[in-house]
Amino acid sequence: MGEQLKEAYVAYLRSVLPSTIDDAFFDYLATLDASEVTVTAIPEGSVVFARVPFLQVKGPLLVVQLLETTLLCLINYASLVATNAARFRLLAGPDMKLIEMGLRRAQGPDGALSASKYSYIGGFDCTSNILAGKLYGIPVRGTIAHSFIMSFRGLEEVQQRELPPRAGGDPVDLADLAVSWLQQVCVLLQTPPSKANQGELAAFVSYAVTFPCDFQGLLDTYCVRRSGLPNFCAVALALHQLGYQAIGVRLDSGDLAQQSKEIRGVFQACGAHFQVPWFGTIPIAVSNDISEQSLEQFRREGSEIDMIGIGTNLVTCPLQPSLGCVYKLVEVNGSPCLKLTEDEEKMTIPGMKAIYRLYDAAGHPFMDLMALEEEPSPSAGQELGIRVLGRLEETTKVTPTTVEPLHRTYFRDGQVCEPLPSLPEVRTHAQVSLNLLSPAHRRLHEPQPYPVAVTERLHQLFLQLRQGSL
Amino acid sequence: MGEQLKEAYVAYLRSVLPSTIDDAFFDYLATLDASEVTVTAIPEGSVVFARVPFLQVKGPLLVVQLLETTLLCLINYASLVATNAARFRLLAGPDMKLIEMGLRRAQGPDGALSASKYSYIGGFDCTSNILAGKLYGIPVRGTIAHSFIMSFRGLEEVQQRELPPRAGGDPVDLADLAVSWLQQVCVLLQTPPSKANQGELAAFVSYAVTFPCDFQGLLDTYCVRRSGLPNFCAVALALHQLGYQAIGVRLDSGDLAQQSKEIRGVFQACGAHFQVPWFGTIPIAVSNDISEQSLEQFRREGSEIDMIGIGTNLVTCPLQPSLGCVYKLVEVNGSPCLKLTEDEEKMTIPGMKAIYRLYDAAGHPFMDLMALEEEPSPSAGQELGIRVLGRLEETTKVTPTTVEPLHRTYFRDGQVCEPLPSLPEVRTHAQVSLNLLSPAHRRLHEPQPYPVAVTERLHQLFLQLRQGSL
Repeated sequence: MGEQLKEAYVAYLRSVLPSTIDDAFFDYLATLDASEVTVTAIPEGSVVFARVPFLQVKGPLLVVQLLETTLLCLINYASLVATNAARFRLLAGPDMKLIEMGLRRAQGPDGALSASKYSYIGGFDCTSNILAGKLYGIPVRGTIAHSFIMSFRGLEEVQQRELPPRAGGDPVDLADLAVSWLQQVCVLLQTPPSKANQGELAAFVSYAVTFPCDFQGLLDTYCVRRSGLPNFCAVALALHQLGYQAIGVRLDSGDLAQQSKEIRGVFQACGAHFQVPWFGTIPIAVSNDISEQSLEQFRREGSEIDMIGIGTNLVTCPLQPSLGCVYKLVEVNGSPCLKLTEDEEKMTIPGMKAIYRLYDAAGHPFMDLMALEEEPSPSAGQELGIRVLGRLEETTKVTPTTVEPLHRTYFRDGQVCEPLPSLPEVRTHAQVSLNLLSPAHRRLHEPQPYPVAVTERLHQLFLQLRQGSL
Repeated sequence: MGEQLKEAYVAYLRSVLPSTIDDAFFDYLATLDASEVTVTAIPEGSVVFARVPFLQVKGPLLVVQLLETTLLCLINYASLVATNAARFRLLAGPDMKLIEMGLRRAQGPDGALSASKYSYIGGFDCTSNILAGKLYGIPVRGTIAHSFIMSFRGLEEVQQRELPPRAGGDPVDLADLAVSWLQQVCVLLQTPPSKANQGELAAFVSYAVTFPCDFQGLLDTYCVRRSGLPNFCAVALALHQLGYQAIGVRLDSGDLAQQSKEIRGVFQACGAHFQVPWFGTIPIAVSNDISEQSLEQFRREGSEIDMIGIGTNLVTCPLQPSLGCVYKLVEVNGSPCLKLTEDEEKMTIPGMKAIYRLYDAAGHPFMDLMALEEEPSPSAGQELGIRVLGRLEETTKVTPTTVEPLHRTYFRDGQVCEPLPSLPEVRTHAQVSLNLLSPAHRRLHEPQPYPVAVTERLHQLFLQLRQGSL
């Protein structure tokens, strides 16, 4: 932060804090930095479980207290939306293209950038937010808007109608060609050409002349079956005659799964009838308030959907609109501490900790284990006596096949001290981390609870501190 | 935007758009501005109803299309959270202090700034987000953190114990004074002094010596009744002996309404017993996942709460996590247009419109009326035949006592052309606008639907366009 800005902030604080405060405090504020702060964390993109600390911050109490809100603000929504995106990815399967389209419903422009970035980490393929594309290198995708189609009334409004064949040669009037194809398509589909909206046809022709290699259609501005679909097929077949291939269609209303199957049928019929093999596999994209339930419905009923745009239900996370990460004091001046509450679930686990993920013989993690920092690491293949949170009264024996220490030190002495992964690396790590989970832990509905445990020594420390505070 | 930045953006667009695009298009993009755009709007902070356009944007189609996402992104969440804040204000009543505390659960730092700004507009009094205070001039408030209290073990850790009386004179050891008051308070409250946590007492003393005119307590780090409350009363009474007055307490767990009454009882008992009249009215603040239901519970059961901090349920709006404002094309080249859908609720109302709010004799608005821009304004006291949305088949007669045109032109020829109100002015306008509503329209549960209507001419235009598109 520049000196001038820092002075302005300190002056502001002076204006709102009680006038009894010593000047020395404000002088001290102006000297504050993170040079004595150390941060350890579980690598970004890792699956984490409730109660397991994924970030540990050491340093002067005042400084680390000032970091509390900043860190929670940066982590809570990022983790929430990445998790939500990962749920959509799990439901959609690995091959579905998923586009984040939440800019309009996010908490302003910066909330939307966070949504784009962390949806990508969670497993989305691309975003409609061009600024997120520019800033973070996330692939961008878009389709056509209804308003573009509505802005045309008829073919006379198409300003540029001529397109040369892809292989070269004299330009052809694409509008005339599309009109003649429309007749043939309407015969095949048994729908009256008079019901194909002329403004929509004009919009498609106009788009196709401008983007001959990237033509796509939005089918539902007017009637899909009698207008959008015949108009799209007519323009796509006209383009095909000139050597170009359409790249897709989008549907934004109605029963998307059912319509996708009907549209696929029409594409296949056109492909067969007009001998255009690629026509049967034109990608179908859908949007319109897509939720987890929508994806479940698509899977249940079957669909021919290739690409899904998700906005509101991705970025606002309506199934759980907030994530309640907390930042708790666990040690002061080398002494572990504990805030007692009546709710065992809300008890903090005292002391600086090492965290281990224990894997079974099949390579699935089966438990996260918290130990005191000074304890020796558990060994692979050796039996351990531990206490599982939620049933602390009994000792459980486990024998991990592999033991992974989860925390790394990312920041020390005021410096980042570990190379930070790129966004695509974090995204890949997230999918790897999720894929390691056993299916019972990974499933979205009623997953088997993943046990989190403490070592015997940590448990004894907890009992001792609780005894002392009562 | 600087030339260099603009060039970088255009270069990015060139890199992601199809390579078939003419260079001239990118040259054109670099010249784009809003000089031909006009924006009319209903004044910020006004109550608005579904289906009534609150912003109308005129200009070249390409430019106003580019504004779509920006405007929706800026308006949707802002309107949603202001509305949510206004609901909390209606439930809490005009005298309750409401603090926005959502920074940790908002969509990153900028989402949180939007939350603070628009919660204030919706009727909150202050925010815990210091940056929002600095940037927007919103009053800031905070209390003590549990971690501050937990960081103390005993009175020996209090570094500065001496405080001079307010009226001047020799400094007194506040820790010793508080210890002696604790004995007396514990006798009065019939609770053993040994149960009052010494670290908590040390934290309170330390805070009081630093902020003698602004002492406040957080009561629930340990047991409220046996530790937090006696410790707070002891320090507050010690301060009182030196001429200082405590400013409040906060509770962050448990049954807040019930505890507030018990705490008020203790304050009144102390006030009476030790003859400190102001003690009975020490403000009680509460926090901890406060929702609309919490406020309803406080009202139903009665409470002694004076101030409420609301975070998650304010900023993430869990009852409705997104607002679905849309931006629709209603006129092209002077011709009104219509996108047909099967759902009448989603039909756009064609054409540029004037919007009137009609008031009854009691001064309550009873209907919003959309008219074509060129129609004469309805007159106060004259009967009108209109069509109410949702029952368009019949004509309804209404006679407004007052007619208010709602839209003003805020932006013309690339310039803001109307003075923009300050944040406190918008906040006041929001409360005035809400207070004008009749109680039946204003109530939060099952409010009487507020009718929105169109003029006969607008209705005829709609029928004619629908006829033409079918």
